[in-house]
Amino acid sequence: MDISEFDLIESCFAPLSIGYDEAYALKNDAALISEHPDRSTVVTMDTLIAGVHFFITDPAEDIARKCLRVNLSDLAAMGAEAFAYTLSMAYNENIDGQWVKSFTSGLAADQKLFSIHLIGGDTVKTPGPLTITVTCFGHVPRHHCLKRNTALPGQDIWVSGTLGDAAAGLKILNGDANSSNSEFRQNLIKRFRVPQPRTELGCYLLKESISNTAMDVSDGLLADLTHITSASKVGATIQEKDLPFSNAFNSLMSENKDLKTKLAVAGGDDYELLFTADRNQRDKIIALSRTLSIKLTRIGIVEKGEEVSLLREDGSLFQITNLGWKHF
Amino acid sequence: MDISEFDLIESCFAPLSIGYDEAYALKNDAALISEHPDRSTVVTMDTLIAGVHFFITDPAEDIARKCLRVNLSDLAAMGAEAFAYTLSMAYNENIDGQWVKSFTSGLAADQKLFSIHLIGGDTVKTPGPLTITVTCFGHVPRHHCLKRNTALPGQDIWVSGTLGDAAAGLKILNGDANSSNSEFRQNLIKRFRVPQPRTELGCYLLKESISNTAMDVSDGLLADLTHITSASKVGATIQEKDLPFSNAFNSLMSENKDLKTKLAVAGGDDYELLFTADRNQRDKIIALSRTLSIKLTRIGIVEKGEEVSLLREDGSLFQITNLGWKHF
Repeated sequence: MDISEFDLIESCFAPLSIGYDEAYALKNDAALISEHPDRSTVVTMDTLIAGVHFFITDPAEDIARKCLRVNLSDLAAMGAEAFAYTLSMAYNENIDGQWVKSFTSGLAADQKLFSIHLIGGDTVKTPGPLTITVTCFGHVPRHHCLKRNTALPGQDIWVSGTLGDAAAGLKILNGDANSSNSEFRQNLIKRFRVPQPRTELGCYLLKESISNTAMDVSDGLLADLTHITSASKVGATIQEKDLPFSNAFNSLMSENKDLKTKLAVAGGDDYELLFTADRNQRDKIIALSRTLSIKLTRIGIVEKGEEVSLLREDGSLFQITNLGWKHF
Repeated sequence: MDISEFDLIESCFAPLSIGYDEAYALKNDAALISEHPDRSTVVTMDTLIAGVHFFITDPAEDIARKCLRVNLSDLAAMGAEAFAYTLSMAYNENIDGQWVKSFTSGLAADQKLFSIHLIGGDTVKTPGPLTITVTCFGHVPRHHCLKRNTALPGQDIWVSGTLGDAAAGLKILNGDANSSNSEFRQNLIKRFRVPQPRTELGCYLLKESISNTAMDVSDGLLADLTHITSASKVGATIQEKDLPFSNAFNSLMSENKDLKTKLAVAGGDDYELLFTADRNQRDKIIALSRTLSIKLTRIGIVEKGEEVSLLREDGSLFQITNLGWKHF
C-alpha cells in the first residue's frame, strides 16, 4: 500500500459517506443511526488480527475480550452505552473447538459485565491468520454525541487512567523489557491484552455536558490528540510532567525516562479517554473522578494554531519522530 | 477446526444471543434492532476473503460489489431494504492505492444503484490475504420480517432467477470448464463475481404477505433449503425437472446432466431467493414475477417429516453426497 491509512480513508472511503450526515465524513469513532424519537444508535466496527493486534498464544478469553472492548472503547468515546454486537470470525486450521469454547466464554463474561448481546455475525475459514471483526451498537440521546471537531482554544485537555501500560506490556511479551516484580509484570501485560473501556466516563461526559469533544487513545496519545486538533482546526500543548503513570509503569521505566515518555505518548493501545473541557468544568471533573473511581488528569491545553507540542519540564520540546502506534 | 461451522454457531455462539429475541438465536440471515416506532433496523454481516470467496485477480470493482451484494442478499432474504453499511478492509502489501481507488469506485456504483451509504468501518494491515467484512443495515416494518422457521407442510417452494450459473462461472475461472460462446462464458463468470441481490422481490414478499419464509441461496439450494426445513421442523421435495436454468448454463452443461444438477443444487453462490408460499398465492406470485421482471419458479413442496429429497423425472432420488458450497 503506497498511501497511509489516513489518506486512504480521507480520499477513497470518506466520499462514499457523503449524503449521510451522521457518518461525520468517517472522522469520528462511530456513526449514528437515528431511528428512535429520543435516541440514536451508534455503530462502530473494528478488526483485530493475530500477530498484529494480539498474539495467537494469548488466552482465547482475553482475545475475545479485547475484540469486544476496543469497540466498547470507541462507543465510550462517543458517549454511548453499548447494547449489542455482531462478530465475524475468520479462522484457520489451528483453531479448534476447545479454543472457540474458551473464546466464547470470554465473550460471555464481558457480555454480563457490559450488558450486551451477540445478535449476529459470520464464521468463515481463512488461509491467513485468525481475523476477528466486531460491529458494536450503542445508544446516545438523539443526534447527540461526543465528537472530535468541537475542541476550542483555552479548553483543558484531560485523559483518563494511566498511559503507556499496554505498550510496556507488549514490550514485556516481546521480550524487550522485563520487571522483577511479577505483579507489575502481570498488570502491564493485562493492560495490553484486556483493555478497560471507559464506558461510564464517556456517558457521563456527554450526559452532564462536561465535554463535547473526546476520543479514545488507541494509536497513541499524540496521534489521537492530533485527530482532535486537526478536526477542530486548533493546536495543543501537553505537559510531560503531568502525564499519568501507573506504579508498574514507573517501576519498569525508572531508568529510561525518554523511552518512558515515548511509550506514554506514542505507544498506543491505552484505550483511555482523551477529552477537552472548559476551565469552569474542573470541579465537576474532579468530583466525577471520585464518583467513578477513575483517575482523571489534566495534561494540557487547547491552543490556537495547529501545532501539537509536548513540553518538557524545562520548557523545551520533546521530539517524537514516529507518532502513533506501529503494531508488532 | 474439528467442528463444523454449523455446530460452532449452534453450540458456542448462539447461546450468547440468549436474551435478545430479535437475534433469532442466530438462525436467520440477520438480526433486528427495533428502535423506531414503525420499523426495525435489520443488521447483517459477511466476511469475504481473497482465495476463498473471490480471486484477488478479479476486477477490484467486482470484488467491492460482491462484498456489498452478499450482504444486500441477506437483507433481501429478510424482506429488508438497505440504507447503510460499514466496511472493514484488512489489506496486505499487494494492495496499492490504485487498487483501492478501483475498489471504492465499485462501492460507489453500487451505492447509487441500491441507495445506500458507507457510514463507518476500519482499515488494518494483515500479513494474510485481503479480507473484507461488511455490516449492512436495512429497514423492515417493526418486528416484522421474513424468517426461516415458518415453512408449513403443503406450501409451494419457489426460487428466483436461475441456479448453477455462479458455480459454473467458478468452474470456468478455475479452468475446469469452458464454453465456446464468449457471451455465455462472460455471463456465467459475471454471476460468480457480481451476484444480483433480490432486494425488490424480498421486500414485496414481505409487504404483500405473499410469504413468511425465505432465505438466500448462498451455500447451495439443498443446503439452504435444509436450513429452512430444520428450523421449521418440516421436510421438502424438490423436482429436478423444475429447476430453472439459464441458456448459458444449459449450453455449458448439455453433455453432463448429473454435474448440471449437482451444480444447480449444491454449487452455491447463487444469491437467489428461496421462499415458501401457500398454494393460493400462486397467481399473485406469477403476477409479481411479471411486475419485477424476475423469473420465479415453483420447484417443489414443503412436506411433513424432516426429509429433504430431490426427485428425478422417473421418480428416483438424486443422491447428493456433498451438500453445500465447498469454496475453491
